[in-house]
Amino acid sequence: MNLIILQQDELDSGRVILSDDRARHIRKVLKAEAGKPLRVGLLNGPLGIGVVESIDEHGVALHCDFEDVAPPYPRIDLLLAMPRPKVMKRLWAQIAALGVGRVVLLRADKVERYYFDSHVLEPEFYNKLLIEGLQQACCTHLPEVSVRPLFKPFVEDELPELFAHHRKLLADPSGPKGLASFSSSWTEEDRVLLAIGPEGGWTAYELEMLESRGFERVGMGRRILRTDTATIGLISVVAEYLNR
Amino acid sequence: MNLIILQQDELDSGRVILSDDRARHIRKVLKAEAGKPLRVGLLNGPLGIGVVESIDEHGVALHCDFEDVAPPYPRIDLLLAMPRPKVMKRLWAQIAALGVGRVVLLRADKVERYYFDSHVLEPEFYNKLLIEGLQQACCTHLPEVSVRPLFKPFVEDELPELFAHHRKLLADPSGPKGLASFSSSWTEEDRVLLAIGPEGGWTAYELEMLESRGFERVGMGRRILRTDTATIGLISVVAEYLNR
Repeated sequence: MNLIILQQDELDSGRVILSDDRARHIRKVLKAEAGKPLRVGLLNGPLGIGVVESIDEHGVALHCDFEDVAPPYPRIDLLLAMPRPKVMKRLWAQIAALGVGRVVLLRADKVERYYFDSHVLEPEFYNKLLIEGLQQACCTHLPEVSVRPLFKPFVEDELPELFAHHRKLLADPSGPKGLASFSSSWTEEDRVLLAIGPEGGWTAYELEMLESRGFERVGMGRRILRTDTATIGLISVVAEYLNR
Repeated sequence: MNLIILQQDELDSGRVILSDDRARHIRKVLKAEAGKPLRVGLLNGPLGIGVVESIDEHGVALHCDFEDVAPPYPRIDLLLAMPRPKVMKRLWAQIAALGVGRVVLLRADKVERYYFDSHVLEPEFYNKLLIEGLQQACCTHLPEVSVRPLFKPFVEDELPELFAHHRKLLADPSGPKGLASFSSSWTEEDRVLLAIGPEGGWTAYELEMLESRGFERVGMGRRILRTDTATIGLISVVAEYLNR
C-alpha cells in the first residue's frame, strides 16, 4: 500500500477517521506516529498528504490536504472477452495499477456462459481489488466496469457511442502489423481501446463485427500468451507508445 | 497446452511414447485419434509435427518430424531481485512464455534472506512451470536459471563475463529517461539484460554497483507496480522495441 485511498464521503473538512485495513496498515506496516505525513489520494480525485493526528488500536485520525488537480485520467480502455474467473480475479488489481479508464467484460463465442455467474464480477468483490491496485500504483482513478453477457447488442448498440473517438485495436495472431506501425500516428489527445479475445481466439464473425466498428487487427508476435500475461503486456506496450 | 514439449532422450528414431500429463491432454482435451497431427517441440530445439500412431488409456505414441532449425533464441535476459516466493511461483511460466534466455535471481538488501530457502527455487519445481509456459507460448527455449544469494560476488565476478555484450538496463523510478530513448540505438544483434529491483527498490549502493558494471537507469513512469506486473510489462515493452 503505497497510497491510502480515501472516499469523499469519509472526509469531514479534510479530516478522516479510519478503523479498517487502512488503519491497521498505517499502524503495523508504516508504524506511523502522530505528526507523520502519509501519501493519501481521493478516489477519482487528487493526491495529497494526510498528517496523522492521533493513532491508537481503535483507529487513526488523519488531516488531509489535497492537490488542486487529479492525476491524468488513464488513456487506455479495455474490451476483454471474459476470461476464466480465476484469471479475472488475478487481473483486477493489475488492471487498476497499470491504469485503465474503463473495462468492458464481454461474452464471446469461446467464453463459457457460466463465467458470468462468478462472484468475481460482483462490484463489492472487484472494487476491493481495484482499490488495492490503485493503492499499490499510487493512482486514484477507479476503472469503470461494465459486464456484457451478450456480444452482438453491445457491439452494435453501445460500443460505437461509448468509444466514438478511440483508436480501436484488436489483438489477434492474424494481425499483419504490430503495435509500432499503428502507434506512429497517435497524438497526445488519443485514447486507445484495446480488445483482447478469449483463450481460443475471436471467431471470424466476431472479428468481422469488431472491424466493421472501426477496430484494426494488431499482431502480437509468434507467442501465444495466457490472457492475463497478454493483457498486462499489451497495456504496457500501448502505455509506452502513448507516453513516449 | 498449445505445443507438446518433448525431450531428446524420450525420442527413439523420431518415435515417442507418452503416458503422463501430455498423454492425458492429448486424449482428454485435444481428443486426438490415430493419424492426427499435433504441434510438438523439442526442448531447446526445433518445432515439428507429431502424428498420433496409437492412443489408448495406457499411452500415446507419436511419430515426430522436426523442422531443420530451432526458433530464434530469446534476446532478453533477466536479473531479478528475488521476489516473495508466492510472486515468483506465479512468474515462472509467464517468464518462459514471454521469452527469456537466462534468469538470475539475486539477493538484494531489501530481499528477505529466507526467500532463498523456498521450494520455488528448486529445479524440479520451476522446470515444470517453465515448460508449462513454453507449451502455452509454443516455444522451446528453456530459460537458464541461476540463483545467487550474494549480491556483491555475483555483480563483481560473474556478471561482467556472463553479460559482456548485453545492453544493460536498470528499471528504477529515479531513471530520467524511459525505454524509448534507449531503444532507438538498438540493432538487430542486440541482446538486453533487464534488472528489476525488489519491492522496496535497490539501495544507493546497489544502484551504484550495477551502474559501474554498465547498467543504465531507465524510468518506468509514475506508477509503482508489483514485481510480477512490472516484470511482465517491462519484458513486453523491451520485446516490442527489439522486434520492431
